[in-house]
Amino acid sequence: MTATDSAPALVTERSIDPLGFEVPSTVPTHWYNLAADLPQPCPPALHPGTREPLGPEDLAPLFPMALIAQEVSTERYVEIPQTVREIYSLWRPAPLIRAHRLERALGTPARIYYKYEGVSPAGSHKPNTAIAQAYYNKLEGVTRLTTETGAGQWGASLSLAGALLGLTVEVWQVRASYDAKPYRRFQMEAYGGVCHSSPSELTEAGRAILAATPDTTGSLGMAISEAVEVAAEDPEAHYSLGSVLNHVLLHQTVIGQEALEQLGDVVPDVIFGCAGGGSNLAGLTFPFLGRNLREGTTTRLVACEPAACPSLTQGEYRYDHGDVAGLTPLLKMHTLGADFVPPPIHAGGLRYHGMAPMVSHAVNLGLMEAVAIDQDTAFRAGVEFARAEGIIPAPESTHAVAAAIAHARAATTDEVVLIGLSGNGVLDLPSYGAYV
Amino acid sequence: MTATDSAPALVTERSIDPLGFEVPSTVPTHWYNLAADLPQPCPPALHPGTREPLGPEDLAPLFPMALIAQEVSTERYVEIPQTVREIYSLWRPAPLIRAHRLERALGTPARIYYKYEGVSPAGSHKPNTAIAQAYYNKLEGVTRLTTETGAGQWGASLSLAGALLGLTVEVWQVRASYDAKPYRRFQMEAYGGVCHSSPSELTEAGRAILAATPDTTGSLGMAISEAVEVAAEDPEAHYSLGSVLNHVLLHQTVIGQEALEQLGDVVPDVIFGCAGGGSNLAGLTFPFLGRNLREGTTTRLVACEPAACPSLTQGEYRYDHGDVAGLTPLLKMHTLGADFVPPPIHAGGLRYHGMAPMVSHAVNLGLMEAVAIDQDTAFRAGVEFARAEGIIPAPESTHAVAAAIAHARAATTDEVVLIGLSGNGVLDLPSYGAYV
Repeated sequence: MTATDSAPALVTERSIDPLGFEVPSTVPTHWYNLAADLPQPCPPALHPGTREPLGPEDLAPLFPMALIAQEVSTERYVEIPQTVREIYSLWRPAPLIRAHRLERALGTPARIYYKYEGVSPAGSHKPNTAIAQAYYNKLEGVTRLTTETGAGQWGASLSLAGALLGLTVEVWQVRASYDAKPYRRFQMEAYGGVCHSSPSELTEAGRAILAATPDTTGSLGMAISEAVEVAAEDPEAHYSLGSVLNHVLLHQTVIGQEALEQLGDVVPDVIFGCAGGGSNLAGLTFPFLGRNLREGTTTRLVACEPAACPSLTQGEYRYDHGDVAGLTPLLKMHTLGADFVPPPIHAGGLRYHGMAPMVSHAVNLGLMEAVAIDQDTAFRAGVEFARAEGIIPAPESTHAVAAAIAHARAATTDEVVLIGLSGNGVLDLPSYGAYV
Repeated sequence: MTATDSAPALVTERSIDPLGFEVPSTVPTHWYNLAADLPQPCPPALHPGTREPLGPEDLAPLFPMALIAQEVSTERYVEIPQTVREIYSLWRPAPLIRAHRLERALGTPARIYYKYEGVSPAGSHKPNTAIAQAYYNKLEGVTRLTTETGAGQWGASLSLAGALLGLTVEVWQVRASYDAKPYRRFQMEAYGGVCHSSPSELTEAGRAILAATPDTTGSLGMAISEAVEVAAEDPEAHYSLGSVLNHVLLHQTVIGQEALEQLGDVVPDVIFGCAGGGSNLAGLTFPFLGRNLREGTTTRLVACEPAACPSLTQGEYRYDHGDVAGLTPLLKMHTLGADFVPPPIHAGGLRYHGMAPMVSHAVNLGLMEAVAIDQDTAFRAGVEFARAEGIIPAPESTHAVAAAIAHARAATTDEVVLIGLSGNGVLDLPSYGAYV
């Protein structure tokens, strides 16, 4: 390379090539695939029309083949591409911290640890899969990714991935959030992403909704319809999803792989993770669950969901659609019904009617547990955590914190408790303001 | 300790005792004091009335003796108390990252590193001194700290320190920011801090200002007056300052001490740090400057200030007051005049009329350089950095990034460039929105 006075394009085709520097060995080399260790296979996704198991060709218009292959893979370990590891190394390994100060504040003999994903540039675990999805799409010649977003965490994370890997990212954001919470949109735009208020005039779906209900506040279901429509019509575009699917959960296992390594000989007695679509929970817990299944360790794994959207604790375990319109494949999952509309809670990332099939399956097999936490209890725990450990947890993460605090208060031994702190609450401070 | 079902007070008197766990050896054990290595001593602060050098008794109503002693210390290394190290270890050592992706984007042969302080719970370097100041105050029996804040970074950091060390923190925030940018206030409140709009009805100073100009938007000068008045009247209260003074700069050297260690044998050719009051710049560069002075290394140190508030490049080097009202001691510094009102720029943390005496002295001796960066150039660099490295820099930090990018573009060798990334821009996203 030579010096230059002109500004070269920031992201070039070369970005897909690894830069070739040595990534620290503490950044995992492989994602972990729970499918390899499950005592029974996870029920497959079904075609919404035929109700037959989906084939790769059904997914090809929306996803690259590499991700479709990961979706059905039963390989135990999937190698993380070097370019993805290089980007991960900008903030990974994410810290695993002993919560000495929280332990003292609670007066508990338990040893509490937390794995903190809020150090990522987007402030949560979401970039772990956004980077990987952008990478595989770029590798197969896709130039444009579309997605939907509610509060904006996922849209910001995919925009970040687009900036780092040279893809155009277009996000349809639920109108109510777009209007009321502009910070995430500014974040998307800083990364070069384009954010539309949904429903928009840019799609048939959007125009139809606007014609019928011009004053609608929008919904994730509408935004999905718009993003999918655009991706399906542009041969150079694909669609990207931030949770629920197997390949998304797979990418998130970088969290648990690191935690296993960081804890060394310390085997957690119980792990608490918040659960919305399930990817953060799975990412942290699946590597530990795999060890339980292979080596007979007995780490308890607890999904912490909001009482206002309790798919695991109150939903049915059955085939259901992922979206309101019924366009997506049928997934076997714990569901409150595709038409369930959760009340507006502050933990926007947990407002999903269903639960990832792989998580639902693990719960159904008795390999994981679930608890529901009400919003006040969650925020109280968030404030308690912040005043002891400094970090203000994301409203989603406070559900795991609340369950862990209740557990630790009742503890009588020095058992090991691990909390999944999926993100920080910096852009959710108005929610804390409303609570405090 | 025993388990309990009741919620004990989160922060107790015990908090001042170290918890006794082993802090990683990568967290520095000592702050570095440039005064020990300066070829000429820094001119002393003068009493505003007598114009004689200040004695400890002049500062005692506002500061604890330990900080007053640090203010005039010439010891090279000051031991960091174990409790402070334990709290530092929640996020320290802060990462030092090789900017491989930015290097490629710029097409530069230079090797670029950045030291990232945005991983602290408050998102910037400010907690490094907030924790230390709260600690020494607590140790001497103070129960309440008062301070002023503009955009809110300092008020949030001191509130964090108050939560972790068991002190009441009361913040007077400039009314314009209080009204327009509530996120930082929510952050203070989440940590248990109390935030008042300034001018307030709570102080004589505030009431007088409100009587004369009820519609004032407030100013840092007014907020300082209120915070100082309250601290001076309450024997259990002290006042706390976020930059400028020697002891504040001392605490920030934890940044440079870590960077020295992290770089190992790699000696930077040039370091760029943003400069407002000077504490972030000093914190990163003073340990390198000390090495220059002791060992003959030749690392260039460049202060990057906003063109809109150019104290080092355009100000006079003379004794001046730190506040508008002329109540504070006279400090020998590069100043634009205590009555200088900088235009409203997005890098709120750099809007100070003067520069830390120790930094001013070093620049005056030719030991450091200074450049002024205009706001557009700074934001352009911030976006460039974000799209290459993922992190959206704080508007303050973009000044250092801009100077480093210009330097790297012109580089013809593999020289080593170190950037001080003092914080992230997550709560400044509206500024990026306005720029993009």
